[in-house]
Amino acid sequence: MVGRSGLEFVDSRGGAAAAMNTAIGAALISMVCNLTIGKPKYVEHELTMIDVRSRAEELRSLAVELAEADATAFNAVMAAYKLPKSTDAEKLARTEAVQEALVGAADVPLRIAGAAADVIALAGRIMDGANVNVISDVAVAADSARAGLQSAITNVEINRAAIKDESHKAELAASVARLKDAVLTAGAISESITARITG
Amino acid sequence: MVGRSGLEFVDSRGGAAAAMNTAIGAALISMVCNLTIGKPKYVEHELTMIDVRSRAEELRSLAVELAEADATAFNAVMAAYKLPKSTDAEKLARTEAVQEALVGAADVPLRIAGAAADVIALAGRIMDGANVNVISDVAVAADSARAGLQSAITNVEINRAAIKDESHKAELAASVARLKDAVLTAGAISESITARITG
Repeated sequence: MVGRSGLEFVDSRGGAAAAMNTAIGAALISMVCNLTIGKPKYVEHELTMIDVRSRAEELRSLAVELAEADATAFNAVMAAYKLPKSTDAEKLARTEAVQEALVGAADVPLRIAGAAADVIALAGRIMDGANVNVISDVAVAADSARAGLQSAITNVEINRAAIKDESHKAELAASVARLKDAVLTAGAISESITARITG
Repeated sequence: MVGRSGLEFVDSRGGAAAAMNTAIGAALISMVCNLTIGKPKYVEHELTMIDVRSRAEELRSLAVELAEADATAFNAVMAAYKLPKSTDAEKLARTEAVQEALVGAADVPLRIAGAAADVIALAGRIMDGANVNVISDVAVAADSARAGLQSAITNVEINRAAIKDESHKAELAASVARLKDAVLTAGAISESITARITG
């Protein structure tokens, strides 16, 4: 169990890193779709590529927004910890404010994890129909989004560890458990593409 | 075996992504060292933190340089493929130029992979002595560098597949095999820290 006391909660950059890894994955997916769309050789995958490109662009924007949201949620936790705690009433108000802020600070990485899992799913949708000249970028996208997902899960967990509401803790744990499958999916996509490349 | 004919080699962004994931990992390691150095509680780890911070800063710079080097190496491959191929002499010169460029294009991601493996090793060196308030960032650093490493390996492989010199191919394969251990190390670091966080 990791202590989270004091004013040293400076791990918002880890949240930004998770969001950035996810955005890189989404950007690569979008690039691969762009380099596949309009090519006669891949015409049967055209509709999939157009749909995936649009989703990837949404996810890239979302990831960038979530990097900012993560910084905001982190600052809210910092601010709550700085509340006065001289009287019992102040202590109670501070504890409540900290707990509320922590719930927000766990929610943002959970949304980053969700976006990363969606990017991984997009990689899965295009891996068979993508322009073979850029197939390695689909693997890179999956690996980058995998890092985003794994990092976001770590960030959920560190906040979850400090949350006292047992039912909310259990909810977060269930959400994380559902998202963990996508870590394995990303690994499988990357390995399968590497196997194709190395023949 | 993936075809690499024509002028569609636009996967330099995958190389940039690998370098960027590595740089993110290095930056987080450096941040964690900064937030550990000077704190009485962690005084016994002070020298390790100072040394690791210095190495992490070097690796971050190196990764940024390698992102540029990757673009240059990629452009060299593009340029070689654009050489004339009307006569047998031209064809021969073009093939030689392409092969030379491909060797360069495999070498840069190999160096990115090496830098990523070094970042993972730094994460391992600080995971036990780092400020516990930012321990999650060590896991995020390992996950990000892992993505950089895996992606760089994919980029080595796609270039290796088009290289004809069997002895150079074998050398690259051996280098990749050595680096793959660090993928597992990164996973172990991340898992071990997550286990500490979730208690």
